[in-house]
Amino acid sequence: MREVFQRELHEVQDRLVEMADSVSVIIEKATQAFLANEVGKADEAIALSEANEDKALALDELVIKILARQSPVARDLRILVSALRISASLERMGALAGHIASIARYRFPGSAVPESLRKTFEEMGSLDILLAQKVAGVLRNTDVDQARAIQAEDERVDELHRHIFDVVLANDWKENAMFTVDVTLASRYFERFADHVVDISSKVSYLTTGEWHETE
Amino acid sequence: MREVFQRELHEVQDRLVEMADSVSVIIEKATQAFLANEVGKADEAIALSEANEDKALALDELVIKILARQSPVARDLRILVSALRISASLERMGALAGHIASIARYRFPGSAVPESLRKTFEEMGSLDILLAQKVAGVLRNTDVDQARAIQAEDERVDELHRHIFDVVLANDWKENAMFTVDVTLASRYFERFADHVVDISSKVSYLTTGEWHETE
Repeated sequence: MREVFQRELHEVQDRLVEMADSVSVIIEKATQAFLANEVGKADEAIALSEANEDKALALDELVIKILARQSPVARDLRILVSALRISASLERMGALAGHIASIARYRFPGSAVPESLRKTFEEMGSLDILLAQKVAGVLRNTDVDQARAIQAEDERVDELHRHIFDVVLANDWKENAMFTVDVTLASRYFERFADHVVDISSKVSYLTTGEWHETE
Repeated sequence: MREVFQRELHEVQDRLVEMADSVSVIIEKATQAFLANEVGKADEAIALSEANEDKALALDELVIKILARQSPVARDLRILVSALRISASLERMGALAGHIASIARYRFPGSAVPESLRKTFEEMGSLDILLAQKVAGVLRNTDVDQARAIQAEDERVDELHRHIFDVVLANDWKENAMFTVDVTLASRYFERFADHVVDISSKVSYLTTGEWHETE
């Protein structure tokens, strides 16, 4: 029984890693679409984000099946409940990246990124791509130091997010309302994306160190 | 055993209802703060939204405890997994309402709402308040017809959300970037709030009708 359970947990982990890998690809394509105005990449990101939603549903079904069959307790149970939450975060990350792609798609053939904010969004996009790749790595190797390191890296994304508002709200901001709306929403999506990375990483740290508030 | 389990499920339901009631209060205070520029209401909404987060954590712990003790299968298991998701949605709804309150707080003593969009936001706010109250009712009585009716009401919120973008992106929009940023984010928060109402209602319909895609 224990052996079957371990195999099933492994399957859950593999699927989470697969979802995270796919989310890295989605945010990469979405960022390219947004920064370089590549409508083809936007379409790919949007399609992948829909497929990502199906993967989350399938993973949740698998977890429910394992819960029913194995009736796990204590740490095993917490791993499975965490898997449900991580899958929900990965689903949202795909959706947020899809929203960024949709902004690019909507403005095509124009660009959604004003020149004054190009560098900021380039850094924000690169950070989100890197964070998504790192979170996939942490789900793969459950390395607690790496998981903790990720949680600090989100700070720079928050800083860039605030910087964008500073630029938009400054007196010399001369872009029209369309740019203002686009950069406001895109910045929010990039920032929320990184928030989910932090959530996932902190769940991985908890699971790995066993620092749960045990109640059973 | 069965009797204990039923009592525990009841406790979970009561706590979900309590959270939903509290979310109704938060969105009501946040909407008042946003529309009438009442900074006291904003502070109350923000404090309540933090308390709402603690309630979600406590509820998740309770669900994990029940899963460990009772090892439920089939429909009972799905009810508990759904409770985890509903609690996550209610937590997000509180946070989104808190964000709306924060916008009002940030602009105080000025207003975040330009006159040209006041009526639209009034309707949007009223709808969100009503939807939050209805979702509390549905969690209380698990009435499947009411749960289904709610899912349609979200459409009007989406319509208002699109209308706000139409107004902001029209040629005669003369407000400054600060208003543009505020209404863009606020509209997004009101719309996401209603999305979560739909998610919760559809989970209640599924649970009540038993129309799950059964896999055990």
